[in-house]
Amino acid sequence: MASQKPALPKGMRDFSPEQMAKRQYLFDTIQEVFKRYGYQPIETPTMEKLSTLTGKYGDEGDTLLFKVLNSGDFLKKAKHLEDYKTLTNEISEKGLRYDLTVPFARYVVQHQHEIQFPFKRYQMQPVWRADRPQRGRYREFYQCDADVVGSDSLLNEAELLMMADTVFTKLGLEVEIRLNNRKILQGLAEKIQAPEKMIALTVAIDKLDKIGWEGVSKELEEQGFTKEAIAEVYIFIQRKAEGLSFLKLFFEGNAVAHQGIAEMEEVLEPIEAFIPINNIVIDPVLARGLSYYTGCIYEIQATKHTMGSIGGGGRYDELTAIFGLKGVSGVGISFGVERIYDLLEVQGNFPEHLGQSTQVLFAVFDKDTQHFCMPIARRLRDRNIATEVYPDLQRIKKQFDYANKRDIPYVIVIGSEEMKTGKLTFKNMKTGEQQQLTEDEIISFMLETRTKKN
Amino acid sequence: MASQKPALPKGMRDFSPEQMAKRQYLFDTIQEVFKRYGYQPIETPTMEKLSTLTGKYGDEGDTLLFKVLNSGDFLKKAKHLEDYKTLTNEISEKGLRYDLTVPFARYVVQHQHEIQFPFKRYQMQPVWRADRPQRGRYREFYQCDADVVGSDSLLNEAELLMMADTVFTKLGLEVEIRLNNRKILQGLAEKIQAPEKMIALTVAIDKLDKIGWEGVSKELEEQGFTKEAIAEVYIFIQRKAEGLSFLKLFFEGNAVAHQGIAEMEEVLEPIEAFIPINNIVIDPVLARGLSYYTGCIYEIQATKHTMGSIGGGGRYDELTAIFGLKGVSGVGISFGVERIYDLLEVQGNFPEHLGQSTQVLFAVFDKDTQHFCMPIARRLRDRNIATEVYPDLQRIKKQFDYANKRDIPYVIVIGSEEMKTGKLTFKNMKTGEQQQLTEDEIISFMLETRTKKN
Repeated sequence: MASQKPALPKGMRDFSPEQMAKRQYLFDTIQEVFKRYGYQPIETPTMEKLSTLTGKYGDEGDTLLFKVLNSGDFLKKAKHLEDYKTLTNEISEKGLRYDLTVPFARYVVQHQHEIQFPFKRYQMQPVWRADRPQRGRYREFYQCDADVVGSDSLLNEAELLMMADTVFTKLGLEVEIRLNNRKILQGLAEKIQAPEKMIALTVAIDKLDKIGWEGVSKELEEQGFTKEAIAEVYIFIQRKAEGLSFLKLFFEGNAVAHQGIAEMEEVLEPIEAFIPINNIVIDPVLARGLSYYTGCIYEIQATKHTMGSIGGGGRYDELTAIFGLKGVSGVGISFGVERIYDLLEVQGNFPEHLGQSTQVLFAVFDKDTQHFCMPIARRLRDRNIATEVYPDLQRIKKQFDYANKRDIPYVIVIGSEEMKTGKLTFKNMKTGEQQQLTEDEIISFMLETRTKKN
Repeated sequence: MASQKPALPKGMRDFSPEQMAKRQYLFDTIQEVFKRYGYQPIETPTMEKLSTLTGKYGDEGDTLLFKVLNSGDFLKKAKHLEDYKTLTNEISEKGLRYDLTVPFARYVVQHQHEIQFPFKRYQMQPVWRADRPQRGRYREFYQCDADVVGSDSLLNEAELLMMADTVFTKLGLEVEIRLNNRKILQGLAEKIQAPEKMIALTVAIDKLDKIGWEGVSKELEEQGFTKEAIAEVYIFIQRKAEGLSFLKLFFEGNAVAHQGIAEMEEVLEPIEAFIPINNIVIDPVLARGLSYYTGCIYEIQATKHTMGSIGGGGRYDELTAIFGLKGVSGVGISFGVERIYDLLEVQGNFPEHLGQSTQVLFAVFDKDTQHFCMPIARRLRDRNIATEVYPDLQRIKKQFDYANKRDIPYVIVIGSEEMKTGKLTFKNMKTGEQQQLTEDEIISFMLETRTKKN
C-alpha cells in the first residue's frame, strides 16, 4: 500500500484525550441532572430509512441530509441516470440521523406497546448535516435532548426549566431563560385579524433581534398584513417588557391568548421558589423557528457572551402523528452542547486538571525494578487509582518529562536501593517535594488524596 | 404529511432504557479498567475519506464499506454511468468507520506532534459493515479497543492481559486466554523450508478448530507444501499442548521461533502472580486472521459457552506505516462487547435492578399536593437521588402501577392529611410496608439506603 497523507473529510473532527475529558465532564453534568428527574437514556441507530427522514426538515433540510449509497450493484434498479435528484432515491435508501427529535418520534410509535407512559427519555448522540462548514459549525455534532411524551401536565415544563437552571448553575454559566407560549402568538394573529397568517407573523417577529423593527415591518407589509395590523404588532413589541400584566390587558377577551398566559403562570408557580426570578424572562416575541411547537416555548442564552441560543425547547401536541400515533402530547428541552462547550472554553469554566487521568507513575531503571513494582501498581489499581508503570527502559529524566506532560501528579521512583529497603521515593510533581515512603504509606496517602478531592 | 408505518433499516437497532442500562454497565466496567491502567479516551468521526478506508480490509472489506453519497449534484463529475464500481468513486468520497484500528492509525499519524508517546488510548464507538444481517450480527455495532503505540516493551502485553483478566472477573465471566506469538508461526514456516509461505500456512492452521486436521492438510497440499513439510506441521499440532518446553526442543536452533518463545516468557513473568495460571494457555497454533500482527497475539474465549472469540489482540510493528509514519510499534486489545453482552444476558450475569433509575416517586391527588412536594423532591434531587413527581392527576392506583412497571422502589403519597401533619406516607413497593415519616426522616432513609447499596 502506498503511503498517504492522512486527513479528515471537511467539517469532521477528532477528539483528543484532553477534549474528551472536557466533553465527558459536560455530558456527565447534564446526564446526572436528567437522571435526577427520572429521565432515562435511549439510543437510536445512526442510519434511518430515508422515508423516515425526508420531508421532516423542510426543503433545505432534505438537501442537507447525508445519504448512504445502497450496497452492491446500486445501478441495477436505477432508471434516471440524467437527473441526480431522481437518481438519489433510486440508489440510496438510508440517511444519517439529522436530529434526535424525528428518530425519537419514530421510536415512540414503533415501541408504543413496550413503553410505560409518561415516557421521560434523554438522548445524547451525534447528528450529521451537509452544511457548509465554518467556525463553530461542523458536519458531525452532538445533540442532547430530554423529552417527556404522554403527559399534558405543565409540571413537565416547570421541571424541564428547573433542570436547565440546575445544569447551568453546575457548569458555572449565567444564563437567562426566555419563556413564551405559542398561544400568545396565535392570539396576536387573531387580534390583528389575520389568524390564518400566524406562521408568517411568527417568522417575521422572530427576526426582530437581527433585522430590527424596520425590517420586521417591511416583511409584514410584503406578507400582506394591513397597516392597522402592523401598528398593533408595533405596540405589542414596544410594550413586551411589561410582562404578564400587560399581556392580560392587551389580550382582553382573547381566549387563546389568555389560555397561553394561564399556562405560563402555571409553569412559573412551582418553580418560583427555585430559580432566581430575574433568570426567567417572559418574552412574548419569542417564536422559535420550528413549526411543530403548540404550547410553551423557551430559549436559553448566556448573559455574559452573545452566542445565540445555547438551549431551548417547548411543547408539541402532535409530534408522533407523522408516524400514525395521534393524541400524544410531548414537551422537551435541548442543550446546545457544542456551543456550551465553546462557552465554557472561552470563559475558562472547565474545572482544572480534567485531563489528569493517571494519578501515579512508576519510574523504573531496569526490568527487575519494573517487575518489583507490578504488585504495588496492582494494589493501587485495585483501589481504582489510575496507575502507570513506565514500560520502556529510558533515562529517568525522560520518564519525569512524560509525567509532567501527561499532568501526572505523583511519581514513584524504584531503584535497587528502594527494592532493598522497601522505602520508595515518592515525588510530588507539582511541589517537587520528595519523601521516602513504604508501599502501605503510599497507598494510604493516595486514598486520602482521592477522598479530599471528591 | 401522510402517516407512515415506522421501521428501521435492516441490521439496525434501537436501544431501550433497559438495554441502555445494561450496555452502560458493560461499557463502564471496561472503561474503568482502561482508566486504571492509564489509558485515555479519544474519538474519531463517523465518516472518513474513502481513500483512508479503501484497501485496508481486503477486497471483501471494501465491498462491505458503507459509502456516503456526495452532497449536491453528485452527477456533475460522474463519467462512468454504466459501471457501478467505477461510478462509486465518482459520486462518493466518504465512508462510514469500518473498525477502530485504521482510524486510530490515521489519528496517530495526523496528530503525531501533539501526542505524548507512549500513547495509551482507548476508543468505544460504533462501526458499520454492510454484512448480511443475521442473529447476533448487526450492521451497526460497537467496538471497544485499547492500544498503546510508541513502546516496544512487552510489559504492555502483560498489562493488557491483566486488564482483560480484571474485566472478565468483574463481569463474572470465566474465560480462557490463549497466547501465541507470530514469530512461532514464522519459525514453523522456516523449519518446514517454506518461509515465504508463512501467511498461507497461518491461514490454513487457523482453521483447525473448524475443519480439523484432514481439512488443514488438504489445504496445505493445495497450497503446494511438501509431504515432509505437512508431516512436520502434523507433529507440531499434535504436541502443541505440551507448552513452552516442547516448543524449545522442537525449534532448537531456530532463532526467530526462540525469539517468540522468549517474548512469551517475558510477557508471562510479571503476570503470573495475578492471573490464575490455568486461565492462560499457550496455543502455538493460534494465528488470528489479521495479517498486520508481528509479535504476541492473544484471543479470549468464554469457558462455559462456545461463542467464539469475545476478545483478542496483539502486537503490530508497522501499523502507521500505511499513513507514512514508520518505526512505531503498537499493541492492543479489543473487547467483543456485543458478544459479551449476549453472554451476560444468556448467563444471567447482569446485576439486578440495573434499569432501576428512579428511586422515589411522589404520588399526588391534585395540584396543591403536587406543588407541596416540589421542595421535598428538590431536596432529594439536590442529593442526587433520582426522584419523580407524577405529573398528571390520575387515580393513585395508576400512579402505583407506573412505579411498579418502572421498578421504582419507594413511593411517597401526599394527600391533604399529609400536607396538614407533615407526616408523609412512605411506601416500600417491594415489601408493601407503609410508614408515616417526616420529610427529614425520608431524606435520611434514602441517603442511608444509597450508602448501603454502594
